[in-house]
Amino acid sequence: MQLIDGKAVSSRVLKECKAQVEELVQQGCRPGLAVVLVGDDAASRAYVRSKERTCKDLGIYSVKLELPSETSQEELQEVIVGLNENPDVDGILVQSPPPSHIDEGAVVMTIDPDKDVDGFHPVNVAKLVLEDVGGFIPCTPLGCQRLLGDYGIKTQGAHVVIVGRSMIVGKPMAMLLMSKGLLGDATVTIAHSRTVDLPEVCRSADILIAAVGRPEFIGGDHIKEGAVVIDVGINRVEDPRAKRGYRLVGDVNFDEASQRCSAITPVPGGVGPMTIAMLMSNTVKACLQRRGLELNG
Amino acid sequence: MQLIDGKAVSSRVLKECKAQVEELVQQGCRPGLAVVLVGDDAASRAYVRSKERTCKDLGIYSVKLELPSETSQEELQEVIVGLNENPDVDGILVQSPPPSHIDEGAVVMTIDPDKDVDGFHPVNVAKLVLEDVGGFIPCTPLGCQRLLGDYGIKTQGAHVVIVGRSMIVGKPMAMLLMSKGLLGDATVTIAHSRTVDLPEVCRSADILIAAVGRPEFIGGDHIKEGAVVIDVGINRVEDPRAKRGYRLVGDVNFDEASQRCSAITPVPGGVGPMTIAMLMSNTVKACLQRRGLELNG
Repeated sequence: MQLIDGKAVSSRVLKECKAQVEELVQQGCRPGLAVVLVGDDAASRAYVRSKERTCKDLGIYSVKLELPSETSQEELQEVIVGLNENPDVDGILVQSPPPSHIDEGAVVMTIDPDKDVDGFHPVNVAKLVLEDVGGFIPCTPLGCQRLLGDYGIKTQGAHVVIVGRSMIVGKPMAMLLMSKGLLGDATVTIAHSRTVDLPEVCRSADILIAAVGRPEFIGGDHIKEGAVVIDVGINRVEDPRAKRGYRLVGDVNFDEASQRCSAITPVPGGVGPMTIAMLMSNTVKACLQRRGLELNG
Repeated sequence: MQLIDGKAVSSRVLKECKAQVEELVQQGCRPGLAVVLVGDDAASRAYVRSKERTCKDLGIYSVKLELPSETSQEELQEVIVGLNENPDVDGILVQSPPPSHIDEGAVVMTIDPDKDVDGFHPVNVAKLVLEDVGGFIPCTPLGCQRLLGDYGIKTQGAHVVIVGRSMIVGKPMAMLLMSKGLLGDATVTIAHSRTVDLPEVCRSADILIAAVGRPEFIGGDHIKEGAVVIDVGINRVEDPRAKRGYRLVGDVNFDEASQRCSAITPVPGGVGPMTIAMLMSNTVKACLQRRGLELNG
């Protein structure tokens, strides 16, 4: 049984990005990422800080905009329009979730699709479906695909079962893995809360991708002997023995799964670190495409 | 074994549309559909004629624009811009396939998404993925869904296997049937030319949808006892005994399939007639949405 080391792969992605940023800086251009945070949710703050720090490590120009939680829809959208017009900003990300009075869909629509490094703008959603490689693909599915690729796990002709039909993971993951090409060409099944006999459906998977957001929901009985398991979930469960009073678990029961599968991503240290790495990769891509530059490396 | 009668269901859809058009005309507004044909392909001409005739039957204002095959990309797009601006036109359709010098993707991008009754514009592609009911869904998948609904075939929790991953049928069909709701909520598998052991994958289907464009490609060994079979294919095969020298067959071997399935669409007379009916339905929807009208009926 092989552990799929997301930390190692994400380090490799970040190293690649750093080299690309250096080359771009030599060409006289520094990629820039703007992160907008509305309100003072502690977890969101931590995510934003981590993105800022990673930008700094890579030499990416980073803009952090912290807006009070009472910011109106109009004010937020004006901020985004300003970032759209800012030539030094290649990527724009609005940290999710915003306060409840904000219409997140309308906010995403305001972002210039060419700067939508999260890949949530309808133009980029459509590009993924249409297999247009110029679009931006959401970071988490893109990270899962990269993990599979780096570990030499063949998707072509493989049966991939994705549990969860969200816009952020399940659906883009399905589109990505059924697309034509070396890292796609999979037979893809999307299962969800309405699926009848989920364990049986999951047992038909060569590659099982869990993205349901329910702690340890996928047990050993969901896994075919020798399958590859990608666990997208990151759930907090109470644990009085843990320092902070909780521990992080995935959507998969790791102990049960690891006795049946051939490879698995741990939580933490699996898919998690990939998301931010692919965000950086998308930011470099945005810079290249927007400014019409090419890399020699 | 039940025959799913596409002619009967399409007649019902057209009758509904006709009543809606009558009500709209009483409100002082007539829905309009513009069909653009470039070149002189005989089959395309026949399709366009049939759309024109159906519009006439329903009381829909119909505009037919026949452009010579040497029409340039720019000329075609200018025509579409004119139709976008024409207030009497609610729906715009460019008959496919255009001559080879025309970039079909760029043409679709020119159509006002609010008039894109074919549902191929990226804005509508994204709306389908995002489950935004205000978008337009491609007519053939929409017709298949309607057939299932009218025959009381439950999609919720059912395992649907779609063979074919095209932008016109396979992918929108998958999105539609995995969406939340009474006519969705299916567990969906998309299989294609790269799928390993296609017969086995197909045999796991409660509802099998064939959209591969290969005559009688799906045989009895692809079908689980009691499954429902929706055959999207319309293929010409040579037949010296037939009047015209050919006959139409689907992607499914009907004789083999009908011995195993519980219900099946014939070819012709199954999915075929639904496509034009859903086009009319989309045109009425476009009229209602664009003009901010409502039906009482």
